[in-house]
Amino acid sequence: MLLIDSATKDLTPWLKAFKKHLPEKEVITYDEITDPSLVEVAVVWQHRKELFSELSKLKLVASLGAGVDHILQDPLLKPQVPVSKIVSPLLSTPMSNYCIGAILYYHKQFDKYALDKADKIWDQQFDPERKVTIGILGLGQLGTDLAEKLHLLGFDVHGLSQTKKNLKYATTYGANELETFLSKVNVLVCMLPRTKETTGIINHELLYQLPPRSFLINVGRGPQQVNQDIITALDEGQLSGAFLDVFPEEPLPSNSPLWMHPNVFITPHIAVVTKMEAAVPQIVENYQRLKEGKGLINLIDRSKGY
Amino acid sequence: MLLIDSATKDLTPWLKAFKKHLPEKEVITYDEITDPSLVEVAVVWQHRKELFSELSKLKLVASLGAGVDHILQDPLLKPQVPVSKIVSPLLSTPMSNYCIGAILYYHKQFDKYALDKADKIWDQQFDPERKVTIGILGLGQLGTDLAEKLHLLGFDVHGLSQTKKNLKYATTYGANELETFLSKVNVLVCMLPRTKETTGIINHELLYQLPPRSFLINVGRGPQQVNQDIITALDEGQLSGAFLDVFPEEPLPSNSPLWMHPNVFITPHIAVVTKMEAAVPQIVENYQRLKEGKGLINLIDRSKGY
Repeated sequence: MLLIDSATKDLTPWLKAFKKHLPEKEVITYDEITDPSLVEVAVVWQHRKELFSELSKLKLVASLGAGVDHILQDPLLKPQVPVSKIVSPLLSTPMSNYCIGAILYYHKQFDKYALDKADKIWDQQFDPERKVTIGILGLGQLGTDLAEKLHLLGFDVHGLSQTKKNLKYATTYGANELETFLSKVNVLVCMLPRTKETTGIINHELLYQLPPRSFLINVGRGPQQVNQDIITALDEGQLSGAFLDVFPEEPLPSNSPLWMHPNVFITPHIAVVTKMEAAVPQIVENYQRLKEGKGLINLIDRSKGY
Repeated sequence: MLLIDSATKDLTPWLKAFKKHLPEKEVITYDEITDPSLVEVAVVWQHRKELFSELSKLKLVASLGAGVDHILQDPLLKPQVPVSKIVSPLLSTPMSNYCIGAILYYHKQFDKYALDKADKIWDQQFDPERKVTIGILGLGQLGTDLAEKLHLLGFDVHGLSQTKKNLKYATTYGANELETFLSKVNVLVCMLPRTKETTGIINHELLYQLPPRSFLINVGRGPQQVNQDIITALDEGQLSGAFLDVFPEEPLPSNSPLWMHPNVFITPHIAVVTKMEAAVPQIVENYQRLKEGKGLINLIDRSKGY
């Protein structure tokens, strides 16, 4: 059986979508469990506590998104259970478009012109573009797609990944070259998965290795960023601005100083919302592969955490 | 001799750049003219009145930008004098980036999130992207570059040109198919050259052939747009927003209602500012070709006006 569970998503459309592809009786919610040992696949997004302790025969935990940190941080998840994520151009397209939109917003000074408009100021500068060299932290499916597109738009792109990659469209670095990488870029896009190593990585130390007046975009995971360090860097001019889609606590609390900061653009974790047409077919395929004893697709490396 | 003239540009850096490539004495300004009949090439941007009547031996008028309307609308320009424009990726890259930035700003609802931020509103919608089908009016070098890039970013692109083009990346239309073209798109990007036919083309009649709540981007020429018709379309919901870089009168007068309209984004004609490294080499090349009796490059078709 395939169980769907989420504390934050409305499950109704998801149940309907899965039932289109699988026998109705094999797709259930938590309340419909009669025998927990029959559940082989748990499809989850922010699942309920204790869930994994109750499902003794789990053969796959499938994330409803590209991130799996919400699954791996559950201590009840047994080490041998495979975990899958969604891999799809239906995720990389909206993600790249969000990042490109944020980069062009900065590059083309749309922030400045929005302010100028309020004062009816017509300021036609000789050189109206901010010079940008873009650094992408994390070169998975999403980071690689962004690197290629930014290159085609004419930008100079650098990218860092745990193990150095060989990319046609970007100068690449391995994790041990972080300092060099940061010194070369002035727009930093964080697309890292959330692991123990990346939690809190966007902190004072990292930000101050960028050139002064750099620009930060975070579309990775909220717990990677230290809000107070970002605010300090903004106030000291080390950052000229930040474009943030994720936050350590979501929704961002109303008393967060980020809301009030003039150089921070905030979006409510919407860079990518997993579309059903992206997620359902590949999870259904894995369910069928399980039944047929075939190898599973889109599994993450549990030892790496992504 | 090559003369440079402009009422709006500081000529000092331009003179310096041309003198790097040509003998110093052959590059002059208006005040340095001793014998007007020696001037063979006039490099102009918003040139002074009467200039063309004084230069009897002109063999080329070179625009310092992609537009030539400022030259062609001068009745003193003799019909047989060739006119050139700048053609360069140094123009198409910033133009495409401006348009893509404006489209993503709308598609990703950055306007909404900017407003939400002011009220500390965290509104995580199920489907946070506005659906867009993009129509490009004008498929010259700039429009074609934009069409290809938008296609690579995953968008459905339509394009209209005087004579229907055959493009790999867009559904194309000829000028006689304007109505069909407009009915299919909900983001209209105007990249037309300014001619008699395109003056005032962005008017009530055209805007109301788009689907309701469409979005308008004008990076063509200001006189193409009828400001009052745009405002009416915005107020009636026919347009949901407009992103405008050009205006019939520039700078946009401070009493223009566009400044105050909440759904209008204004930039001060900065989508593309011609860079010297783009313009100088190709004008120098034409000057040398003239001397050697060779054919000229980047000439416009005087009968078409672009």
